[in-house]
Amino acid sequence: MITTKIAERSLLGLKDISKEEIVSILDRALHWEYHQDKVHNVLHGKFAANMFFENSTRTRFSFEIAEKRLGADVVNFSAATSSVEKGESIYDTVKTLESTGVDVGIIRLKPIGVLAEIAPKLNIPLINAGDGNNEHPTQALLDLYTMRKHFGSLEGLNVAIVGDVLHSRVARSNVFALRKFGCKVSFCTPPNMRMSDLDVPYISMEDALKADVVMMLRVQLERHESGMLSSAEGYRQNYGLTSERAAQIGKHAIIMHPAPFNRNVEIDDAVIESEQSRIFPQMSNGVPIRMAVVERALS
Amino acid sequence: MITTKIAERSLLGLKDISKEEIVSILDRALHWEYHQDKVHNVLHGKFAANMFFENSTRTRFSFEIAEKRLGADVVNFSAATSSVEKGESIYDTVKTLESTGVDVGIIRLKPIGVLAEIAPKLNIPLINAGDGNNEHPTQALLDLYTMRKHFGSLEGLNVAIVGDVLHSRVARSNVFALRKFGCKVSFCTPPNMRMSDLDVPYISMEDALKADVVMMLRVQLERHESGMLSSAEGYRQNYGLTSERAAQIGKHAIIMHPAPFNRNVEIDDAVIESEQSRIFPQMSNGVPIRMAVVERALS
Amino acid sequence: MITTKIAERSLLGLKDISKEEIVSILDRALHWEYHQDKVHNVLHGKFAANMFFENSTRTRFSFEIAEKRLGADVVNFSAATSSVEKGESIYDTVKTLESTGVDVGIIRLKPIGVLAEIAPKLNIPLINAGDGNNEHPTQALLDLYTMRKHFGSLEGLNVAIVGDVLHSRVARSNVFALRKFGCKVSFCTPPNMRMSDLDVPYISMEDALKADVVMMLRVQLERHESGMLSSAEGYRQNYGLTSERAAQIGKHAIIMHPAPFNRNVEIDDAVIESEQSRIFPQMSNGVPIRMAVVERALS
Repeated sequence: MITTKIAERSLLGLKDISKEEIVSILDRALHWEYHQDKVHNVLHGKFAANMFFENSTRTRFSFEIAEKRLGADVVNFSAATSSVEKGESIYDTVKTLESTGVDVGIIRLKPIGVLAEIAPKLNIPLINAGDGNNEHPTQALLDLYTMRKHFGSLEGLNVAIVGDVLHSRVARSNVFALRKFGCKVSFCTPPNMRMSDLDVPYISMEDALKADVVMMLRVQLERHESGMLSSAEGYRQNYGLTSERAAQIGKHAIIMHPAPFNRNVEIDDAVIESEQSRIFPQMSNGVPIRMAVVERALS
Repeated sequence: MITTKIAERSLLGLKDISKEEIVSILDRALHWEYHQDKVHNVLHGKFAANMFFENSTRTRFSFEIAEKRLGADVVNFSAATSSVEKGESIYDTVKTLESTGVDVGIIRLKPIGVLAEIAPKLNIPLINAGDGNNEHPTQALLDLYTMRKHFGSLEGLNVAIVGDVLHSRVARSNVFALRKFGCKVSFCTPPNMRMSDLDVPYISMEDALKADVVMMLRVQLERHESGMLSSAEGYRQNYGLTSERAAQIGKHAIIMHPAPFNRNVEIDDAVIESEQSRIFPQMSNGVPIRMAVVERALS
Repeated sequence: MITTKIAERSLLGLKDISKEEIVSILDRALHWEYHQDKVHNVLHGKFAANMFFENSTRTRFSFEIAEKRLGADVVNFSAATSSVEKGESIYDTVKTLESTGVDVGIIRLKPIGVLAEIAPKLNIPLINAGDGNNEHPTQALLDLYTMRKHFGSLEGLNVAIVGDVLHSRVARSNVFALRKFGCKVSFCTPPNMRMSDLDVPYISMEDALKADVVMMLRVQLERHESGMLSSAEGYRQNYGLTSERAAQIGKHAIIMHPAPFNRNVEIDDAVIESEQSRIFPQMSNGVPIRMAVVERALS
């Protein structure tokens, strides 16, 4: 019984969450966007633990600021400075932190399936901050938030996701969430970067530029075996959002990227902070989204 | 004069501390256990510095949460991200942190003797969070707290410490503390993992299972020269708390382990969260113990 | 317009800042020195981000304590645990942190010129916590503060900076600042450690010992190509502040060092905490100086 309620306050992914739940988070984030100029007391006395078994700059900062704006105390853990090196399992670490009395765990980790496996064994809600190439729900929520802010509504939007879909947990979470709002989601990607399990139409770069939202993905060079990319410049020529291509998208459309980006590989320098780009606003929107998600976990 | 008082508020080990002092800490921890649901103001405006010259997950978290529950501000230092790499001595680092106005230093470090050497030169109390294979006083205090909670009293308990005693600061601090309460402490360990300087009886695994407290130790594989262990499975067969052995301990007895553990080496998976195990409660008890110790340092 | 005001609240170096501005910071630091016994609320609700692209112990701690004493919330970033490893540029990282709503960025980094390049593109003030061998303005400010505290005034002081001037951002910031107060600044350094671009007189060790302030610098062994130093002991014989040499300085004079130091290389053990040494007081003075600088950035 209690476990069920805790599970409902966790956020492990967007695949199995209802449209209403997503709307509720987006609405609450809107509230926080207009009240994030100060530190609140709603979570005073609560402890949030950011447990990053994989490195992160922006996501960890974004969560930490969200947690502190809500008045929570924060403890940070990153694998590089922990005894995870000693072979301690992820479960044992998270269980340990639970034992010390933290109220919510925000977790980034590599292995897929571990979160779903350990969440029912714990008495605190967990928030997925990115698990391997499975899901990154708060990133997709801030993407939806950014789109809704620009278009007023998500219903029926045409979203093209361009790039390294194969390694992208961001793409997956966006597909799961956007489809609940009747969005048309397409992928544009080199043949060797396709995702095998999701039934998403693949389109050409030319067609991708006709979408309402052109969402570029980072080429995760570090996850590719050598030879997958002939060259960074070759990638740019075929799949990069160059200034020339950016000029072809609709005047109503927006450009997104979850960052970090490879400048002048998947996106040109001049495009990153162009008028139609929402890349840095996406990051700003991450804070109220995470305030809503953390608050929900502890409510 | 002042230095003496500061030294009295330090906690470098349990060897030279009185039984009354230990009881006083355990009693105060009991108070905090029942008041750790929120953040207090008793140390508002005070700064605690966690200085970990050796990696740690649970101990650092436990101290940090304890400090923050008391209302202190916390600064964290771990060797991996500091100029200790530049050869700066531990004394210079701690003296630096003292100079910046921190009120108490919690220190984990490898070299033995350094804490006792530097403490008298400083004007802030120090708390030993583990020094080499010498002492780990707060771990032993939380162990005593856990035992007292279960048995009502520590007097005359029969405690068997099983495993890699040679490398265990936890074992040493427990021996020092438990003997003050008239406990009978025994070691059960492979011949090549014995401690040379403490006069503790060595017993068989069969006898260890008859104790009131069966305290398993982590096999510190990373500190062993190759060859000391024939194999992890071999160790388990001879000295592991397997499910079969766990079934033989007394119904009144409890199982403890300071963690992190090597699952299915020194302790079986199924035993870790079994009814008689106090392993995760030990971690929970670490927070009120450390609240008592940090509060004492700053009182 | 706004950008100009923000730029005025940044502190990228002391070269282009007025004497009046420096005096104003020193005076405000004096106020904070007498009010640093508790945590204030002047920056409550503000977020300071410490972004260290180069490791640091003392400077990061000093800033963090200063920020927290002012009541600010603090987020820490160090390159070792961030996606900077993934090749993300410094600008992108800082811009990201700005997007999450931090109010001021304290930055340490290797490449020279980057701070001046990115500051105008950001909407938050930046504080230089050391950039390559260019400037380290808060270190020089605390040096001036320490001198003023001892001598009552900075006007006309004779300051000898001894050691590895070539790699010293501390030396440069001190030269820029001290000259605004009519100080006579000289360098004493091995021929291969001279700075090429500043017109500062080079003097002998014998003359350096006649100064009002003998400021020793760390020999940055890690930045030297092999062979530049014949030996640590050779360096000590020629340019170290040995106990013998320390006995020769004027009774009114003081000894300084920005730390960390190589004991018994550029300065003898016995000199570090001698009566005329201000080395640990320098570190203490770093907190009120940084309180003044951070407060100024957010005022």
